[in-house]
Amino acid sequence: MSLVRVQNFAISLDGFGTGEPQSFDEPFGHAGERLHEWMFATRFWHAMSGEPGGSDGIDNAFAERHETLGIGAEIMGRRKFTPETGPWAKVGEEDEWRGWWGPNPPFHTPVFVLTHYPRPAMEMEGGTVFHFVDATPEEAVAMAKEAAGGRDVRLGGGATMIREFLTAGVVDRAHFVVVPIVLGRGERVWDGLEGLEADYGIEQVSSPSGVVHVTLTRRGLSQSNAS
Amino acid sequence: MSLVRVQNFAISLDGFGTGEPQSFDEPFGHAGERLHEWMFATRFWHAMSGEPGGSDGIDNAFAERHETLGIGAEIMGRRKFTPETGPWAKVGEEDEWRGWWGPNPPFHTPVFVLTHYPRPAMEMEGGTVFHFVDATPEEAVAMAKEAAGGRDVRLGGGATMIREFLTAGVVDRAHFVVVPIVLGRGERVWDGLEGLEADYGIEQVSSPSGVVHVTLTRRGLSQSNAS
Repeated sequence: MSLVRVQNFAISLDGFGTGEPQSFDEPFGHAGERLHEWMFATRFWHAMSGEPGGSDGIDNAFAERHETLGIGAEIMGRRKFTPETGPWAKVGEEDEWRGWWGPNPPFHTPVFVLTHYPRPAMEMEGGTVFHFVDATPEEAVAMAKEAAGGRDVRLGGGATMIREFLTAGVVDRAHFVVVPIVLGRGERVWDGLEGLEADYGIEQVSSPSGVVHVTLTRRGLSQSNAS
Repeated sequence: MSLVRVQNFAISLDGFGTGEPQSFDEPFGHAGERLHEWMFATRFWHAMSGEPGGSDGIDNAFAERHETLGIGAEIMGRRKFTPETGPWAKVGEEDEWRGWWGPNPPFHTPVFVLTHYPRPAMEMEGGTVFHFVDATPEEAVAMAKEAAGGRDVRLGGGATMIREFLTAGVVDRAHFVVVPIVLGRGERVWDGLEGLEADYGIEQVSSPSGVVHVTLTRRGLSQSNAS
């Protein structure tokens, strides 16, 4: 069975998944890279960047789940793809915005970008294809599952889309990483989710790096499905 | 040196220190007792309640710091003392409200209750004396330190007063306990504290009970003072 998962989504102590304002220079706003330093230190990240070394403990164990365990598609909010809002600029032109990740993005699967302004798909090197869809969480999950060919669907964020998908009840498992900083402003993940513990088993485990890994597993997910 | 400390202040995953609405029947609102179950299971709590047993691990180690380490006074927000707002009812009458804790409250020291409606002090059994003062965080800390006779001052909560005292910069150490529930509403502790990590070293450690202990230590507190 194909699961819908949030993986390695970092938030501050006060629950913000990104700072503000987001821009082309500062995709995470005033948060900068502080929410992700725990991941940069892992073997997973080092390997992806072609560097030797990296930590091999709990942070790496979680980080590796980002892609090694059968992800067949991602859904992301538009603001993960671009800080622009409103109608897209330069569609089809040579210098149009093609995401933060260069010509060969690290997804290597179909990626569904949620937007109220649909546009033609964008095929990148390495198997990543960006689809731009105006869809509810349920519709987006249906599309992504079909594209994932039996593998899991990753919800890539930001905080707002993760909150909306949790509210819609379409998330099977979620992994958050609580970084010990207080951002004070930005997009917050927990708002409006009162009573989430009724639907999910919640585990918290601290890492020597200083972060806490919080995992939510939907109650009633059978062992075989949760493998 | 006398330190100003927050000890064993429980919050939800989304940062709420109490639910709503608060009432005489439900002092923590819809949170009920869920924020404090981790403490009820400790040896510290069992002993205070005259019961045998209780856990003796990390949760107990923190819980015991509540009073065994030289607390000489407490400051609390009015809403920790009573759900009433506005002018006090029945001042001096036989059935006036004297707090949640019965005739012998567990403080055994002077307790400064912050209120915009000062009233005469209330002497209880066992050494607890409630003082009702209209004071800024700085003023309240000065009063409490003088009353504490060289011992530490505990900030008892709720979330709003802890946030105000952190904002005022008068807190030396703070210990929060993150309980894996999402309350969604109530009083939130982290709001308006952007960049708190610049002033405090922050440590997070998970307990087998499911909670995470988050400790803040003011940077520059010397080893001898922080003992």
